[in-house]
Amino acid sequence: MSGRLAVIGLGPGDDRYLTREACDALGEAGALYGYGPYLDRVPARLGQTRHASDNSEEGARAEAALRHAATGASVAVVSGGDPGVFAMAASVCEAVETGPEAWRALDIVIVPGITAMLAVAARAGAPLGHDFCAISLSDNLKPWEMIERRLEAAASAGFVIALYNPVSRARPWQLAKAFELLARHLLDRTPVIFGRAVGRRDESVTVAPLAAAQDIAADMATLIIVGSSETRLIARPGRSALVYTPRAVEKVSA
Amino acid sequence: MSGRLAVIGLGPGDDRYLTREACDALGEAGALYGYGPYLDRVPARLGQTRHASDNSEEGARAEAALRHAATGASVAVVSGGDPGVFAMAASVCEAVETGPEAWRALDIVIVPGITAMLAVAARAGAPLGHDFCAISLSDNLKPWEMIERRLEAAASAGFVIALYNPVSRARPWQLAKAFELLARHLLDRTPVIFGRAVGRRDESVTVAPLAAAQDIAADMATLIIVGSSETRLIARPGRSALVYTPRAVEKVSA
Repeated sequence: MSGRLAVIGLGPGDDRYLTREACDALGEAGALYGYGPYLDRVPARLGQTRHASDNSEEGARAEAALRHAATGASVAVVSGGDPGVFAMAASVCEAVETGPEAWRALDIVIVPGITAMLAVAARAGAPLGHDFCAISLSDNLKPWEMIERRLEAAASAGFVIALYNPVSRARPWQLAKAFELLARHLLDRTPVIFGRAVGRRDESVTVAPLAAAQDIAADMATLIIVGSSETRLIARPGRSALVYTPRAVEKVSA
Repeated sequence: MSGRLAVIGLGPGDDRYLTREACDALGEAGALYGYGPYLDRVPARLGQTRHASDNSEEGARAEAALRHAATGASVAVVSGGDPGVFAMAASVCEAVETGPEAWRALDIVIVPGITAMLAVAARAGAPLGHDFCAISLSDNLKPWEMIERRLEAAASAGFVIALYNPVSRARPWQLAKAFELLARHLLDRTPVIFGRAVGRRDESVTVAPLAAAQDIAADMATLIIVGSSETRLIARPGRSALVYTPRAVEKVSA
């Protein structure tokens, strides 16, 4: 009997971003694995067991869920945002590749979710309206030099840049360094969007020019979007400015 | 009296990807604007008017919806996928910037959706598990040379690349040229994922090595993900291979 493992994206914040597919998949699972605060967002269901673990234990969590599924059970791993973007889906794949043969016989389903980048962009306007990239600023799993090279490649080629994992207690200097690097390729007035806890009651969205970006507070709940040279602000009386990147690039500015 | 304009992402395919927020926003609108096939995905509601337009008329659609909202109405523009990713949110912002002052007084809300890139990635495994970018291959609104520069910058810096709008009747050669350019920076065996109509009954997902990618059919309903040098395949007996990009990069391969 083959088990099933669903890796489910809850979206950021509360359940407003939950898709129907994610909702159904949560209902079908007999056991839920995840980081405690994500599990807390899923309403309790009779007979469904819960297995909370710490945020830093992705590998161990993936293995525990796979072991459980391999007993023939229907198991789900919940993930904030989209599980495929710097989240649990890659951890599960890593475990499947290196684990016992039986794990490669499991029915594995990834259920996508709204990733933070899309939620923050929506709050600000349409900053991702043109070509863009997503970079994790964490150098826990890759060399800092690689991150620097990617930031420079992206900024100089005109991508809007979404920064995931911008800062943590163990990584206090990387974000300032990233802004410093980006400033070599982008104008001082380039809009930078800081979306914190978007989708939660305490959400906040702040827009600042790149030249002042280092003065804005950011933490692990913050997703940052750095505009390109084309990204614009629309001032609105009595409302926050809309930030957007036009779909078209004039041939002269190419 | 100020009107309201919501730009709502339906996600790709059927309603499985619809979020609760999108569902609520559809219910609150008195009038819906959109490309016909997207409007057809929204169940009819008594008293709600529908205004379908052609796929190529984004600018005119945005203006018509804004004019309607400025009469004090609650209007929604529906968009496939996420409205902020190569879709209607930027069109609406463009119209707001250049249109009458009254449009800048409107309550404008963007409701994010699952963009095709996330849905296709989920079907394949976790190809976006590491840094990635999204590029529209359409040179209708930007010079082809800019697209080439971005493809080369992204591939040489190690980004996984999602290609939107890969091909159309009016743009028959761009995709083959893109694969040719990418082949200068990536190994022949780099996995390329073709996700067509994901979330619809006729969905298909095909994975091919970059060296054979030009032989796979693609159209405007196809979203393509080109792996990086780190992207891997996990063969599974009796199941399709999982494609994923590990979270970690070894220091030696940097």
